[in-house]
Amino acid sequence: MDCLSSAAASNSYREVRELTERLVSPLEPEDCVVQSMPDASPTRWHLAHTTWFFETFLLARASASYRPVRPEFEYLFNSYYNHVGEQFPRSRRGLLSRPTMREVLAYRREVDARVSELLPHASEDQLRVLELGLHHEQQHQELILTDIKHVLSCNPLGPRYRGDMAHDVAAHEAHQSDSAAPQGDCWADGVAGLVEIGHADRGFCFDNELPVFRTYLQPHQLAQRLVTCGEYLEFVESGRYQRPDDWLSLGWAHAREHGWESPLYWRQTRQATAGWEQFTLDGWRPLDPAEPVSHVSYFEADAYARWRGARLPTEFEWEAFVAGRDCDQRDNLSEPRPGNFLESLSLQPLAPTRAQPGQWYGDVWEWTSSAYSPYPGYQPPAGALGEYNGKFMCNQYVLRGGSCATSNRHIRRTYRNFFPPDARWQFTGIRLAT
Amino acid sequence: MDCLSSAAASNSYREVRELTERLVSPLEPEDCVVQSMPDASPTRWHLAHTTWFFETFLLARASASYRPVRPEFEYLFNSYYNHVGEQFPRSRRGLLSRPTMREVLAYRREVDARVSELLPHASEDQLRVLELGLHHEQQHQELILTDIKHVLSCNPLGPRYRGDMAHDVAAHEAHQSDSAAPQGDCWADGVAGLVEIGHADRGFCFDNELPVFRTYLQPHQLAQRLVTCGEYLEFVESGRYQRPDDWLSLGWAHAREHGWESPLYWRQTRQATAGWEQFTLDGWRPLDPAEPVSHVSYFEADAYARWRGARLPTEFEWEAFVAGRDCDQRDNLSEPRPGNFLESLSLQPLAPTRAQPGQWYGDVWEWTSSAYSPYPGYQPPAGALGEYNGKFMCNQYVLRGGSCATSNRHIRRTYRNFFPPDARWQFTGIRLAT
Amino acid sequence: MDCLSSAAASNSYREVRELTERLVSPLEPEDCVVQSMPDASPTRWHLAHTTWFFETFLLARASASYRPVRPEFEYLFNSYYNHVGEQFPRSRRGLLSRPTMREVLAYRREVDARVSELLPHASEDQLRVLELGLHHEQQHQELILTDIKHVLSCNPLGPRYRGDMAHDVAAHEAHQSDSAAPQGDCWADGVAGLVEIGHADRGFCFDNELPVFRTYLQPHQLAQRLVTCGEYLEFVESGRYQRPDDWLSLGWAHAREHGWESPLYWRQTRQATAGWEQFTLDGWRPLDPAEPVSHVSYFEADAYARWRGARLPTEFEWEAFVAGRDCDQRDNLSEPRPGNFLESLSLQPLAPTRAQPGQWYGDVWEWTSSAYSPYPGYQPPAGALGEYNGKFMCNQYVLRGGSCATSNRHIRRTYRNFFPPDARWQFTGIRLAT
Amino acid sequence: MDCLSSAAASNSYREVRELTERLVSPLEPEDCVVQSMPDASPTRWHLAHTTWFFETFLLARASASYRPVRPEFEYLFNSYYNHVGEQFPRSRRGLLSRPTMREVLAYRREVDARVSELLPHASEDQLRVLELGLHHEQQHQELILTDIKHVLSCNPLGPRYRGDMAHDVAAHEAHQSDSAAPQGDCWADGVAGLVEIGHADRGFCFDNELPVFRTYLQPHQLAQRLVTCGEYLEFVESGRYQRPDDWLSLGWAHAREHGWESPLYWRQTRQATAGWEQFTLDGWRPLDPAEPVSHVSYFEADAYARWRGARLPTEFEWEAFVAGRDCDQRDNLSEPRPGNFLESLSLQPLAPTRAQPGQWYGDVWEWTSSAYSPYPGYQPPAGALGEYNGKFMCNQYVLRGGSCATSNRHIRRTYRNFFPPDARWQFTGIRLAT
Repeated sequence: MDCLSSAAASNSYREVRELTERLVSPLEPEDCVVQSMPDASPTRWHLAHTTWFFETFLLARASASYRPVRPEFEYLFNSYYNHVGEQFPRSRRGLLSRPTMREVLAYRREVDARVSELLPHASEDQLRVLELGLHHEQQHQELILTDIKHVLSCNPLGPRYRGDMAHDVAAHEAHQSDSAAPQGDCWADGVAGLVEIGHADRGFCFDNELPVFRTYLQPHQLAQRLVTCGEYLEFVESGRYQRPDDWLSLGWAHAREHGWESPLYWRQTRQATAGWEQFTLDGWRPLDPAEPVSHVSYFEADAYARWRGARLPTEFEWEAFVAGRDCDQRDNLSEPRPGNFLESLSLQPLAPTRAQPGQWYGDVWEWTSSAYSPYPGYQPPAGALGEYNGKFMCNQYVLRGGSCATSNRHIRRTYRNFFPPDARWQFTGIRLAT
Repeated sequence: MDCLSSAAASNSYREVRELTERLVSPLEPEDCVVQSMPDASPTRWHLAHTTWFFETFLLARASASYRPVRPEFEYLFNSYYNHVGEQFPRSRRGLLSRPTMREVLAYRREVDARVSELLPHASEDQLRVLELGLHHEQQHQELILTDIKHVLSCNPLGPRYRGDMAHDVAAHEAHQSDSAAPQGDCWADGVAGLVEIGHADRGFCFDNELPVFRTYLQPHQLAQRLVTCGEYLEFVESGRYQRPDDWLSLGWAHAREHGWESPLYWRQTRQATAGWEQFTLDGWRPLDPAEPVSHVSYFEADAYARWRGARLPTEFEWEAFVAGRDCDQRDNLSEPRPGNFLESLSLQPLAPTRAQPGQWYGDVWEWTSSAYSPYPGYQPPAGALGEYNGKFMCNQYVLRGGSCATSNRHIRRTYRNFFPPDARWQFTGIRLAT
Repeated sequence: MDCLSSAAASNSYREVRELTERLVSPLEPEDCVVQSMPDASPTRWHLAHTTWFFETFLLARASASYRPVRPEFEYLFNSYYNHVGEQFPRSRRGLLSRPTMREVLAYRREVDARVSELLPHASEDQLRVLELGLHHEQQHQELILTDIKHVLSCNPLGPRYRGDMAHDVAAHEAHQSDSAAPQGDCWADGVAGLVEIGHADRGFCFDNELPVFRTYLQPHQLAQRLVTCGEYLEFVESGRYQRPDDWLSLGWAHAREHGWESPLYWRQTRQATAGWEQFTLDGWRPLDPAEPVSHVSYFEADAYARWRGARLPTEFEWEAFVAGRDCDQRDNLSEPRPGNFLESLSLQPLAPTRAQPGQWYGDVWEWTSSAYSPYPGYQPPAGALGEYNGKFMCNQYVLRGGSCATSNRHIRRTYRNFFPPDARWQFTGIRLAT
Repeated sequence: MDCLSSAAASNSYREVRELTERLVSPLEPEDCVVQSMPDASPTRWHLAHTTWFFETFLLARASASYRPVRPEFEYLFNSYYNHVGEQFPRSRRGLLSRPTMREVLAYRREVDARVSELLPHASEDQLRVLELGLHHEQQHQELILTDIKHVLSCNPLGPRYRGDMAHDVAAHEAHQSDSAAPQGDCWADGVAGLVEIGHADRGFCFDNELPVFRTYLQPHQLAQRLVTCGEYLEFVESGRYQRPDDWLSLGWAHAREHGWESPLYWRQTRQATAGWEQFTLDGWRPLDPAEPVSHVSYFEADAYARWRGARLPTEFEWEAFVAGRDCDQRDNLSEPRPGNFLESLSLQPLAPTRAQPGQWYGDVWEWTSSAYSPYPGYQPPAGALGEYNGKFMCNQYVLRGGSCATSNRHIRRTYRNFFPPDARWQFTGIRLAT
């Protein structure tokens, strides 16, 4: 794998770090404290943890005499690296009112300064760690948005992520007029036979995308578009949340126990004219039937597919299909991929456009039927960074393609995101296969 | 019961409301969000709820056309008044990042202005509600301090409630030199025979202090001082947290389940010279053996007493004894009672002084062996305010005397505080009887 | 306190032990295994534990060289005596399929034989322990019935405790024709002023009935009859389980959390003619409005009383009233008290009769408003038997009078039963006071 | 798929049903009631449920006018077939003391009689359902043993499944003298390249073994023997249950939460000479280092493999390897497979023998790294029987090869057993791959 030049690294570092802080700028200090469920983390924690990552894996390793900015942060902001040491319990992150936002931003400043000093002399190994740290921070950019969305959704006041986010009407209408929701089923043949899977490029990838290997695909078809809110509403309104028929046993039990009646963030309006609305980062809005459905769990995606007489694609079917139409030279940090990504700041899946009718990238992560497991011959790196991906390969499912909260410089064809089958607070949607 | 004059009410209102805000002034906005356990509430919630109380029970009742400052606050800041309406679930108060501190303070401003407008024309009934609201706010002043103490204690950084709280050394030494911990057992005979219990004065009291009634006390003795940290440490160090012998069955089960090894906020220092320290609003400090023990549950107070061959007093024994030496004309808002109360801002129980060797008032609430139950003939007021006290008369124990976090204008001889037997986060201590 | 003669003890021992086994004779071995909730115990456990009690506190103490019948039973069948040693966890008693019923009965045989050998030479102390053991076994006779009732009620097959229990029609009609439900409110003045409480007789009593002491009662009235199912049904059908108004805060939370809609063992029939039925030891039967309501918690009893504008009596009001009309010389093992007790084998509260219109004894235990606490000067015995009563004096309420599952030789005027306020599986009912 | 002849079906039916009852014959009625955890079921439940299966899917479908033997059993003994109707909650099966063992055996008698009447005229479809029912009952034979083992293990008395099970010393020595534990690592190349997976024979298989499909295997090696207790003990004793290094994140959290320190059923003896013993169906016995390790979860199997620098095989690697050396014509009910199966009644994994050094079949189920998921093109049957396998394809892992509690007529090369990664109460062991 190639590594960044020192200059490119410096540039990227600045851009990624700045984007993170731009994302939190609309928030009040109070917003940045709350942990609304164990899976999610307070904004302040994300800001500090990503900084801790650079300090721990880059700065502290660069010199035996390194003096941490705030030694007590090692324990507080270590997420899950047992090789580094004990961790403050994840489910209690919301109990910490200190360090305050101001202190955390000062911590970022100081680490940024130290990284800037290091970069001109950085070794290739250090540049690789830096690049990993940037991809790590991009993952947390997405989590900052999905976690704060969950926090705000718990509040009966229905607060908006930012006051000025109200759709620029013109822009939205432009998008609408361009939109051309594909009609009908829209299937295309997938790639069958022996295919090669995994990251073969020279650019950055995570360890879980390696090694490249061959697998054999049976003939199949893939939908050329995402499932929309309108289509999913039929599933809801035909009572499929009240009957076990299409559900996995575990999914049905979970749905009953948690009182699921629709995707996360949907609710029926109380007006006489019964309709549905959904919570977005812009507050409560009427459900748009043309938008891709989002915030569904694997359980719901799987049940929906079965109800339609279809299934979810495997991650290999997805990757092989996209490989045939994908321009891989864009797969690096310097050339952003087009589509509805974090940078567009819509922060909401949008109806498909003529330019992106298939929405393979962006908008919503697509659940696959593939359990998250190691590729044949997979080897995690030695030491703490070996804990990044490998130890989570159990009871999770792979998602592909990125979402409206993913950076356009972060996603690629071989990228494997993963969540447990009951997770709903990410922008997760559905593509059918058969 | 007499009621305040309009002018006195106006004065008291301003003083009480200002004191509340002075108490939160050392806190960061982030501190005011956290709910560290279901029993406790975020600072912001206390600030808003006490204001909601005046708005709901005074302002909204004063005019049929009253327009609430923020209608959505009725649901958010109603604590437990079912007559008023549904309540946002108590255990989820920490999920609310909005309204922000700034909004809550603005809400206070607006309600204060409206109350000020009303007061000159207030009816006697309205003045009574106002006075109740002030006593209610004083109760929440205490909770603001005990709840934030719990929040800060959960943080491995051990933050202090206010930076400038470090003991003024001179003042502390002055207190020390004055201190004269009573030696030995220090018993005095309690009052025996028929006694009268309950609030007979013309000043304010809560409904649960009424009606006045007669009861019969057997001969008994009361300790003339509180149990100290040094004495309680003997209980800890002789292994009583590891043996069921002295404990109530429920208390032992609770202590085991929650891993209790000492009072709340105590820990052993890690230094070679093994000692103990305790968390205070001024951060971690060495345990002072002369201070009254605090932050013990009823379970611990009861076990300690049994271990000493004694018992806890009943609430009637306490009240009858204090009646014999109490100057009741101080029992009103305008004349503060001497002692270590909120206004001294020590915010920590202190060793007894020559002036207050018995520490009957202030420092720590004293657990009694009396289950919290209605006095014979007790009638709660009609309507929502009838929910203030009566519906909690089950599985709680009465505490007497006030603490270092209680306002000196709030406490009186007949005052009945109450908490479940496992509660430890209040300033709760022990007086022995036999 | 007098103690039994050796001959009387021998007689009583035989009678009590035989009655216990008669109670379990209608059960299948399978019935005797199940633990339907942590509070209840399998039948086999009761049979063995009561035997263990005699072995541990009588036989093993009689000789230093005592060899236990089955040494491993000490751990299995110790209920809560920490002085004796560790206990198999209460909530796991239903996991034990061994010792089988056959083995447990053999264990009883062997202990009975050893006790019989000991009795002729028993010291006064030993005779006192034996008598305690008999009262202990009588308590477990009641629990055997209430626990198996709960087990059978969990079974959709609705099994009956014994097949031949169908009411002897003639007997039942006889009872009915005799019945004369008191009309109207039926109040009588209670005893006011200074009264003496506690066991002053020479016969047996538990430690918690001592010492005798004086207390002062305010003027009050006591209902001269129990609340009936018909009256309680009005509470149910007027929607009081759907509104918090009359409930203690803790009671309402508990009722909501556990989905209470009526007393335990009540259900609405599914027939077109909507009616109610209740589960009895004779299976499901139509609700009889003339019977005393049973299987209500303290929470429900208290809410019902408040709804009727009344309250529950204190335990002292109950005892003082009954003392005025009670023939105390019957308070011993040899003269059974008349009334609907265990020995009548109705095993169900019955409508009042002319002979017992007030139903002060038998039928249902009557909740009092008195928290279970020690009498002034209470001292538990030294050692393990001191754990019998004292350590449970927290968060429980006193009940008086015995039930249809209590032995008529077991109950007396000063008897204090106690259960937590949410307990419903005993035969517990309501008498009003005001 | 071929179906059985009516005569063969009749024979098999009798044999399988009799074997089930032979398995429960050493048990007391009390043993057959207990449910020691939600995953396990009481023996009586298994006996009734397997009978219900024949009644529901064979008898009731054979005639529109079918009258169930006990209509109320439909609800009680339906495991999870939503198409059939509601089910009594799984976790409450241990609350049912009725129907008694005697009643359940009578139920079996009656259904057996009705099946015998039907069989001579059975259609091919009916014969297929019967065959499915027999395989279903064989699965429950295994569960009867593993569930009762768990029940007995909860009992401090350490009861044995049957008193006469003490190893026939001669037989055991014979086995021992024959044993020849393979030394060293013992690897062999697995099958690489394109392979065919799934059941292609004409005999019985479950739906989840279909359809046959091709997949591609990378080069790899498979251990030619199982991991032994002695080897696993090194993992235990080198402190791997105290360090997270080799564990999946989920596995480590689970192990900590449940206090795992070794495989299920292992404990250290209390004697001075510290050794280990394990609970078997023959009671507590010293750990035999030559036996295959059993009762490990997927989490432990996976951690152990990683610690050895190896991994678990995929289910396809296992199947492809075994296909090369397997005599498939034995894969039917009439020819039992050699090996340590249920029929040998050892009921314990044994050290390998010269005849079966690889122990691919029998002794212990072998965890594979394959998440349980549908084969490409998988279609569950229509209706209730479609719920048999398909709806469980989530968060489970595939196991291969059968155990000492599996019938030798039940297992085959393509057989896919599956359990969640934390399950330990089955006979589950480890084979390494690399």
